[in-house]
Amino acid sequence: MTGKVYLVGAGPGAPDLLTVRAAEILSRADVVLHDALVHPETLALARKAQVYAVGKRSGRHSTAQKFISKRLIDSARRFDTVVRLKGGDPLLFGRAHEEIQALRRAGIEFEIVPGVTAASAAGAELGVSLTRRGVARSVAFVTPRSGVGERHNDWAASVLAADTAVIYMGAGLAEEIRAVLLDRGKGPHTPVVLVENASLPGRNVHRGTLADLPDLARRMGSGPAVLLIGEALETSIAEPAVEALLRRA
Amino acid sequence: MTGKVYLVGAGPGAPDLLTVRAAEILSRADVVLHDALVHPETLALARKAQVYAVGKRSGRHSTAQKFISKRLIDSARRFDTVVRLKGGDPLLFGRAHEEIQALRRAGIEFEIVPGVTAASAAGAELGVSLTRRGVARSVAFVTPRSGVGERHNDWAASVLAADTAVIYMGAGLAEEIRAVLLDRGKGPHTPVVLVENASLPGRNVHRGTLADLPDLARRMGSGPAVLLIGEALETSIAEPAVEALLRRA
Repeated sequence: MTGKVYLVGAGPGAPDLLTVRAAEILSRADVVLHDALVHPETLALARKAQVYAVGKRSGRHSTAQKFISKRLIDSARRFDTVVRLKGGDPLLFGRAHEEIQALRRAGIEFEIVPGVTAASAAGAELGVSLTRRGVARSVAFVTPRSGVGERHNDWAASVLAADTAVIYMGAGLAEEIRAVLLDRGKGPHTPVVLVENASLPGRNVHRGTLADLPDLARRMGSGPAVLLIGEALETSIAEPAVEALLRRA
Repeated sequence: MTGKVYLVGAGPGAPDLLTVRAAEILSRADVVLHDALVHPETLALARKAQVYAVGKRSGRHSTAQKFISKRLIDSARRFDTVVRLKGGDPLLFGRAHEEIQALRRAGIEFEIVPGVTAASAAGAELGVSLTRRGVARSVAFVTPRSGVGERHNDWAASVLAADTAVIYMGAGLAEEIRAVLLDRGKGPHTPVVLVENASLPGRNVHRGTLADLPDLARRMGSGPAVLLIGEALETSIAEPAVEALLRRA
């Protein structure tokens, strides 16, 4: 008899943007393995669990990933309810694939509990719909980062083809993102918004154009950030009501 | 003194995939205006509210949209807490833009509460990550539908450029989607999965290739569906463990 592993999305940051289902599973979890950025109040919901941080350090991914998968499998062989808690949605840049594969190979039952992804929280922060009837009917979520030392540019094709693009884990690559997108024909005046710590009290919003992107990025802190690009963001720059809303933040 | 309007994501269908924040706001709402597909258990959380369905019928969008915006504004002038409850995430194909604009113009305070979008729930149902390190680093969410009578093909560019694509509100356009994507060079053997009623007891999963898409669509019921396209979906076809999981569904 082995237990079950739940790959759970913790949402974008604020503890009350967790789903009711995730809260219920955490309340009966025996073991929780969580990423670095999960909110302490979310972890506190796991009242009876052994709770372990397994956040990966950049550049040491592959070793750490195998270690996490092994711990998940070992935990499921000893406990009923094992939670792997990830920021955002587990299936969007959550590196769930490696863990799912490992669980399947080991014959461990698992279930995925979806979460609110950072792009949705960033749009909510800005008061801007990522889609707009007749104007923005495609949204791309991309990351320019990949495996250790590996960096391709095909993420750019997706950004260029979509009406609105949200770049995850790209704030440290602002120079490269600007250079690649400008080189491939994106207009320098395209509105961009960097949202750091979306949904959290320490949130920061930096708005400008693609040409300004490196300057905007330099003004950011060290929190997780998403970069939104596209004409649909124009609203967030032009309208005084939004300015007022953002000043409150 | 006017009240505040909350544009709230009800999540993909299952009532426990609502966020804790959304549940809290519903519990103190005075008025709720909701889309057709929100779960009765979710509506029941609005214990003290007047609850109205404002689901739009296809082809009568623009009139209905103005009417909804007007009701939101009128309600905010009479009540403290007004909730506009939308399926999924309000900012992804939720037509939030028109309502946000109307609220801004009327000077009504509003807040957006993000939700879990259908694509995340569909991926969770399939046990397949929409991104995969080194293989799928871009995901596009698109809709081939637009305004009344209006249908463009630029949605296809975004599908073609992304590693994984999720098409919203496209199940009724299977013939057109196949024709356009094949014509523009997408391989006929590209894996596709139609997920109907993701996260609900009546869920249905139909898997095949782009070439089969119209056949898959004909086997569907009338529930809301998303269409997932891309090599990352291959796992959901090939692996016996997933087959077993899906048979349970």
